Amino acid sequence: MAHQAGRETEDHLLSSPEQVELPSLAARLQDVACSLGVSVGTAESCTGGLIGHSITAVAGSSDYYLGGVICYADEVKIGSLGVPAAAIERHGAVSAQVVVAMAEGLRDHIGCDYAVAVTGVAGPGGGSETKPVGLTYVATAGPTGHQVRRHTWDGDRAANKEQSAAAAMQLLLEVLESSGPDAA
Amino acid sequence: MAHQAGRETEDHLLSSPEQVELPSLAARLQDVACSLGVSVGTAESCTGGLIGHSITAVAGSSDYYLGGVICYADEVKIGSLGVPAAAIERHGAVSAQVVVAMAEGLRDHIGCDYAVAVTGVAGPGGGSETKPVGLTYVATAGPTGHQVRRHTWDGDRAANKEQSAAAAMQLLLEVLESSGPDAA
Repeated sequence: MAHQAGRETEDHLLSSPEQVELPSLAARLQDVACSLGVSVGTAESCTGGLIGHSITAVAGSSDYYLGGVICYADEVKIGSLGVPAAAIERHGAVSAQVVVAMAEGLRDHIGCDYAVAVTGVAGPGGGSETKPVGLTYVATAGPTGHQVRRHTWDGDRAANKEQSAAAAMQLLLEVLESSGPDAA
Repeated sequence: MAHQAGRETEDHLLSSPEQVELPSLAARLQDVACSLGVSVGTAESCTGGLIGHSITAVAGSSDYYLGGVICYADEVKIGSLGVPAAAIERHGAVSAQVVVAMAEGLRDHIGCDYAVAVTGVAGPGGGSETKPVGLTYVATAGPTGHQVRRHTWDGDRAANKEQSAAAAMQLLLEVLESSGPDAA
């Protein structure tokens, strides 16, 4: 697999969670994906299916959304998505390396044009000094490479899941909107 | 795979959707699964991830929930879950045969003790005379066989998704609660 160098940006949002607009993001995603004629899949760890649920809340989502894998346990990240066990061991399940492997693995596994992936510590448990509650990575994988972003949320479990889902959909939306005529 | 004969029941709920208690079902599911020491996975078509999202809204769900597959497109039902293409062709993606194959396939694919699956016509499009909007099948697969139920909802897309998720979780809850000491 040839990939352009991924871009990693940090985006610490430590203010109170704003109103998260999942329905609006899902509607925009459907418009853009359908106008480009590309298919999309999801690889979700900490969001547990919230991205897929948000996408499929919109009638007509089957025109571009194929589905995905909820890889809550590491064994599903490894077994279904081909994430290297060594990457999880070395960097942790909540890391840029693993989220990119999830997105690329999902794209290979279900054959979608674009995959979006998310892994994070939703809380209230599971945090550590280096991987605090709220730490989240989102990534996309597509025909020309991958993108990855790190966020740190400060909400409760429900708010962190919503922010993570929104951030993943927002990243995919930006990638699709900036893609050229070779999007598919 | 040896399976006890599946039980198919019909349960037409044509009254207005009652208040669906997904958070309460998820909490009860976690209590029962953890006390039995069994793992659970989800195979979701029409609910699009809502079951996984509901399950993972409860802190500690990683103690029993491994994850699952959102098989929105038929090619994901076939490719990820091993649903026979001939079963989809013969019976339709919304059928007892396919939902059982989804549950059994998911159980094999991610190695969970119990799988719960759902396929349905959420609407507003996609209905036909024989498969109307609202028609939904839910199934479980476990160590001693499978269970399948048919429902027909009369809500809108959002309500149908919620009812379907609740019915799937309710069926799994009943199966777990009636399982003996050999549950795992």
